[in-house]
Amino acid sequence: MQQAEPSSETLASIRLAVFDFDGVFTDNYVWVDGDGGETVRCCRADGLGLRRLREAGVDALVVSMETAPVVAARARKLGVACLQGIEEKLPVLREEAVARGIGLEAVAYVGNDVNDAECLEAVGLPVCPADAWPEARELASWVLERAGGEGCVREFCDAVWMAHVGARA
Amino acid sequence: MQQAEPSSETLASIRLAVFDFDGVFTDNYVWVDGDGGETVRCCRADGLGLRRLREAGVDALVVSMETAPVVAARARKLGVACLQGIEEKLPVLREEAVARGIGLEAVAYVGNDVNDAECLEAVGLPVCPADAWPEARELASWVLERAGGEGCVREFCDAVWMAHVGARA
Amino acid sequence: MQQAEPSSETLASIRLAVFDFDGVFTDNYVWVDGDGGETVRCCRADGLGLRRLREAGVDALVVSMETAPVVAARARKLGVACLQGIEEKLPVLREEAVARGIGLEAVAYVGNDVNDAECLEAVGLPVCPADAWPEARELASWVLERAGGEGCVREFCDAVWMAHVGARA
Amino acid sequence: MQQAEPSSETLASIRLAVFDFDGVFTDNYVWVDGDGGETVRCCRADGLGLRRLREAGVDALVVSMETAPVVAARARKLGVACLQGIEEKLPVLREEAVARGIGLEAVAYVGNDVNDAECLEAVGLPVCPADAWPEARELASWVLERAGGEGCVREFCDAVWMAHVGARA
Repeated sequence: MQQAEPSSETLASIRLAVFDFDGVFTDNYVWVDGDGGETVRCCRADGLGLRRLREAGVDALVVSMETAPVVAARARKLGVACLQGIEEKLPVLREEAVARGIGLEAVAYVGNDVNDAECLEAVGLPVCPADAWPEARELASWVLERAGGEGCVREFCDAVWMAHVGARA
Repeated sequence: MQQAEPSSETLASIRLAVFDFDGVFTDNYVWVDGDGGETVRCCRADGLGLRRLREAGVDALVVSMETAPVVAARARKLGVACLQGIEEKLPVLREEAVARGIGLEAVAYVGNDVNDAECLEAVGLPVCPADAWPEARELASWVLERAGGEGCVREFCDAVWMAHVGARA
Repeated sequence: MQQAEPSSETLASIRLAVFDFDGVFTDNYVWVDGDGGETVRCCRADGLGLRRLREAGVDALVVSMETAPVVAARARKLGVACLQGIEEKLPVLREEAVARGIGLEAVAYVGNDVNDAECLEAVGLPVCPADAWPEARELASWVLERAGGEGCVREFCDAVWMAHVGARA
Repeated sequence: MQQAEPSSETLASIRLAVFDFDGVFTDNYVWVDGDGGETVRCCRADGLGLRRLREAGVDALVVSMETAPVVAARARKLGVACLQGIEEKLPVLREEAVARGIGLEAVAYVGNDVNDAECLEAVGLPVCPADAWPEARELASWVLERAGGEGCVREFCDAVWMAHVGARA
């Protein structure tokens, strides 16, 4: 399967970008302290990418199975809407698309593991980080060059932004 | 010595999986703060693996020499039973096997260092992460492809789950 | 473009060194906890480098877009002046140069991302870490051998110190 | 210069092992939080090494320029004596040797940076981790295979322990 960066036309058609959290905004690791408190490692470069996504008029949304407070904390800092504790992500995706009056073909989904499989199969642009687990990777039409938590969100946003800016010019 | 993934028959015969903590669920590092508080880095992917182990009906147990609260905190989050501060692990293994009415040949043990040697020698399926210390590695019949804290628990669980699911089909 | 270490003459002419924080003093990652608290990873070796810069009589200054308390905390420990929450860095650079009675040609700027572009274009010695984003890298006349947070500040300071010490000898 | 593991005779003659902290017990990085609190990453494997050093009857001592509480916290956990905030390490080494009635030729010193140079030049067995800075590396007669914070203390202790155990057999 071809899994390189899609055409500008495809990227410019995206209106909503939905991100899994762990393994996308992070390297899929979690630091655990003696009280069970969780800390994750994120990439500063992603913040500039999400800014550009907003400039391009593309909505962003984080949807995570995890219930850890750290997911909301990071989304808040990045200014991205966030839904947590979601065991079934696809119904949420459908609702969010309907609420925006768009079809799933205008949705990009970035995920890294088997619990992202349903969403990756349903959207117009299924994307995964370079280090995604095989069960997610085989469903992606675009495998990013950067790994989870190492700027893959920035790489995705930069490409979408370029396509939208180019489409307007 | 052959140290590749064992046959489906061997994997399907496992009824109890016992894990060392540091170097298996973690990369064997510990973050220490100014009060001596300890934090460790774990892999989110391991959680989905342990779920599959439960689906397969295989018990899981963490047995650690460490007394740090972080071991219990992580085990609690993962829903895995945990015994800490265990200097002599083999007697514990024997008790746990007896309590389940199984022999040590139906037990897998995953460990990474010299204090796991006795257990690795005693069980039916001795396993170690890719980056185990030589004193553990030479006793393993299965050296995982992934390193400690980098998804080696997931890799182990996925293989055991596949074998059990296959055995039922 | 030639992007190796500049001549001793160039290095000896530097009177003020301005550093971006994230991606220079750090690896551009941030650890986020459940309360949104931020932690960054810095390199102990950089401290000895900044000492040498002081010995050489070269001023150092950290200028960051980030408002996180961790930036000030690290600068304080290193004994380096620090300005935070700076969206437009170039006017700040000009003020700092004027205040010292020097021109921008006697200023070195070390940055790693697109929001450092203006400063890199304006100063006499534009520098970036080995792992800078392309938008910064292409503007640097010196690409350090070490990556952000992995001793690149030390590498920069050692070279400047050597040139100043040599110029005096 | 030959910088491989020394002979058993040399190792067996060591009576006191003195360690720098940052870059030896750690990877020379420091995690800094918003209050300036410092956290470092250590290797669990080093603990078993220090146990073996005690078994071999070799004293261990940590001497650090750093004043951060984390140095004492880690040393306490490892059961190793610790002196902090030491700008001039060599006089301390001499005192410790005299107090034990031994000469500096029976002392091993493990350090990674330029502020370890004096000690490395003075002791019988100057040692550095694989990733030491050049100014320390060139003074070591033994460059460990493992890097700072990645088990280099364990590697050192294992070799000294083996030599002492062998010398008794």
